[in-house]
Amino acid sequence: MTKKKRIVSGMRPTGALHLGNYHGALSNWIHMQDSYDCFFFIADWHALTSDYENTAHIKACIRKMMIDWLGAGLSPDKSTLFVQSHIKCHAELFLLLSMITPLSWLERNPTYKEQIAELKNKDLSTFGFLGYPILQAADIIIYRAEGVPVGIDQAAHIEITREIARRFNYFYGYVFPEPETILTESAKILGTDRRKMSKSYENAIFLSDTPDAIRKRVATMITDPQRKKRNDPGDPDVCNVFSFHKSYSPVDMVKEIDQDCRRAAIGCVECKQKMAENLISALAPIREKTEYYHQHLDLVDDIIAQGNKAAAAEAERTMESVRKALKV
Amino acid sequence: MTKKKRIVSGMRPTGALHLGNYHGALSNWIHMQDSYDCFFFIADWHALTSDYENTAHIKACIRKMMIDWLGAGLSPDKSTLFVQSHIKCHAELFLLLSMITPLSWLERNPTYKEQIAELKNKDLSTFGFLGYPILQAADIIIYRAEGVPVGIDQAAHIEITREIARRFNYFYGYVFPEPETILTESAKILGTDRRKMSKSYENAIFLSDTPDAIRKRVATMITDPQRKKRNDPGDPDVCNVFSFHKSYSPVDMVKEIDQDCRRAAIGCVECKQKMAENLISALAPIREKTEYYHQHLDLVDDIIAQGNKAAAAEAERTMESVRKALKV
Repeated sequence: MTKKKRIVSGMRPTGALHLGNYHGALSNWIHMQDSYDCFFFIADWHALTSDYENTAHIKACIRKMMIDWLGAGLSPDKSTLFVQSHIKCHAELFLLLSMITPLSWLERNPTYKEQIAELKNKDLSTFGFLGYPILQAADIIIYRAEGVPVGIDQAAHIEITREIARRFNYFYGYVFPEPETILTESAKILGTDRRKMSKSYENAIFLSDTPDAIRKRVATMITDPQRKKRNDPGDPDVCNVFSFHKSYSPVDMVKEIDQDCRRAAIGCVECKQKMAENLISALAPIREKTEYYHQHLDLVDDIIAQGNKAAAAEAERTMESVRKALKV
Repeated sequence: MTKKKRIVSGMRPTGALHLGNYHGALSNWIHMQDSYDCFFFIADWHALTSDYENTAHIKACIRKMMIDWLGAGLSPDKSTLFVQSHIKCHAELFLLLSMITPLSWLERNPTYKEQIAELKNKDLSTFGFLGYPILQAADIIIYRAEGVPVGIDQAAHIEITREIARRFNYFYGYVFPEPETILTESAKILGTDRRKMSKSYENAIFLSDTPDAIRKRVATMITDPQRKKRNDPGDPDVCNVFSFHKSYSPVDMVKEIDQDCRRAAIGCVECKQKMAENLISALAPIREKTEYYHQHLDLVDDIIAQGNKAAAAEAERTMESVRKALKV
C-alpha cells in the first residue's frame, strides 16, 4: 500500500454554502477524500484580513459551514476537519515565514491590487492584507502538504507558497515539501442573474435551501435573454437554466429539453419547474444530513474539537522541525 | 498600598552585554525593579527580523544575555524575566494586530528606511522587517503594559504601539491600556574609539571582561585628540576616558584629574590606569555573580523556565480578552 499524498485546503467562514461553493471546491474535496490524506480547514483568521471591522458573524459562520461540509459529504473518518484559529502555531509559522519573505513577492501578487480595487468599500491597505499569502503558505506547509486543490484563480498564491517553502529550505535545511497545485475542474455554476454566484449578489441557491425556497429561486432565473415570448425558439447554449439541467437532470431529459427549447416546444416556466424538482431531489440527502447535524450541535462541536486536536498534533510535529532548523 | 505600574521592555539577544547596553538600558531596568511591576524579555524573534540568514548564534546568546542580566542585578524575585519565542501567543497577537495596522503607519516609521540604509549588507526588504513595530506592539500590550522604558531613539515605536492599542480598542472594545513612554536618561558611554559602543565595531568593554581584558581595552582608548604629547595640556571635556572617570571614579579623583589634565600634570597613560582600576572594581561584583551563574547553568535555565511560565500565564489571560473582544 503506497502512502496517500497529503493535501490541504481551506475556506473562509462565509456561513451557509451555495451551489457555487459546492461545485467550485466542496464536491472536489469530497471526491478527493478517498485517494488523498486530506486536511480541510475553516480559515477564520483569513476572514479577518478583509472583515476586520466586523467580526460579529464569524463564530456562527464556522459552525454553519462545518454543518454544510458534513451534510455534503466531508467525513471526519476520512479527513481532518478543523478550524484555523484553534491551531495557534499557524500564527507562529506565519511570523517566522514573514522574516524571510521579500515584500516584492507580495506586492507583485496579481490578486492583491485586484482585490483592493474590487473591495473599494473596505480599507484593505493593511499589513495583514498584504501578508495573507504568507498566512496561506503557513496554513499549507505546516502540514507538509504535497498538494493543494485550487481553482485556476488561486494558482498564483500556491506559487508564492512554493517559493516560500523553497526559501525556508534553502536557508535552514529541508523541512517542507513544495506543494503541487492540483487544478480542480468545476462545473461553471452561475447565480440566478447569470453573474458569479455569490451570497452578496443575492443570486445564490444554498445547499440548505428548502424545496420551496429552491422553487422560488429557480423561478427568478434568467434564461436565454433573446427568448422574449413563449413561442420564440430558445438557445440552450446560452441558457443558465439549461446548464443547471446538465448538472442535475437525467441525460434523456437534458437531450429532450435541448430539442424542445430550440423549437419552442417547452416554455421557460415549465423547463424551470422540471429542473427545480431535479435539483431538489439531488439536494435532498444533503439537506437531510445538514438537518440532522443542526439537531445535534454537540456532535458537530465534538467533530470540530477532534479535528482541531489531530491538526494541532500534526502542526506541532512540523513546528518542532522548524524550530530545530531555525535554531530558535 | 497602590498597585505598581506595569512596564515591559526587551533586548535582542546579542550575546555578552557591554557598558553601552548597561548604561543605555540595563542599569535603568535594575533601578525600576523596586518601583514597577517589571516584565523584561529577550527578543529572539526580533533578532530574526534582521538576522534571518544566520540564526546559529541566537540560542547561545540567550543564555549568555540572561546571565549578564542576573549578574548585573536583575532579579527573578522582583521581575518576570523571560524569552519571547517561548510565549507563543506573542505570534498570535502579532497576526491579529497585523489585520488592523495600516501599511502607511509602518512605511512612515522613521527608523525603517534609516535602518535599511544603515544595514546595507543585509537584505531587509522583507515583510517581517517592515512589520517589526507590530511585533513590538504585541510584545508590549500582551502584558497590558502601562509604560515602556526606552531611549529617545525608540520613542517613535512606542507611538505606533499606542496607536495600534487605540485602534484595537476602538474596533473591538477596551482591552489594552496605551503604554506611556518612560524616557530613560543614560550616561552617554562611547566605545574605545569614540564611536557608539557596539560589538560589531570592536570598541566595546563587556560586563564580563576580566581585569586584564579591561586594562588592555582601556589602554587603547582615544583621549583628547588635540593632546599629542605628554606635556601638552588636555581638555577633559572632550576626552572619552574622562567621561568614564565621571561614571566610575570617586568625586575627588574626578576633580583632581580634571585639574591635572588641563595643566599636563597627569599623562593619558596614568589617567587611563587609574580609570581602569576603578572600572574593574565597579564591575567586580557583576563579574563575580556572572561567574557564579556560568558555574550554575541549571539554575539559569530554571530561572528562564519559571519566567516563561509566569509570562505565558499573564499573556494567555490577555489573549482570552482579545479573542472575546474579536469574537474569534
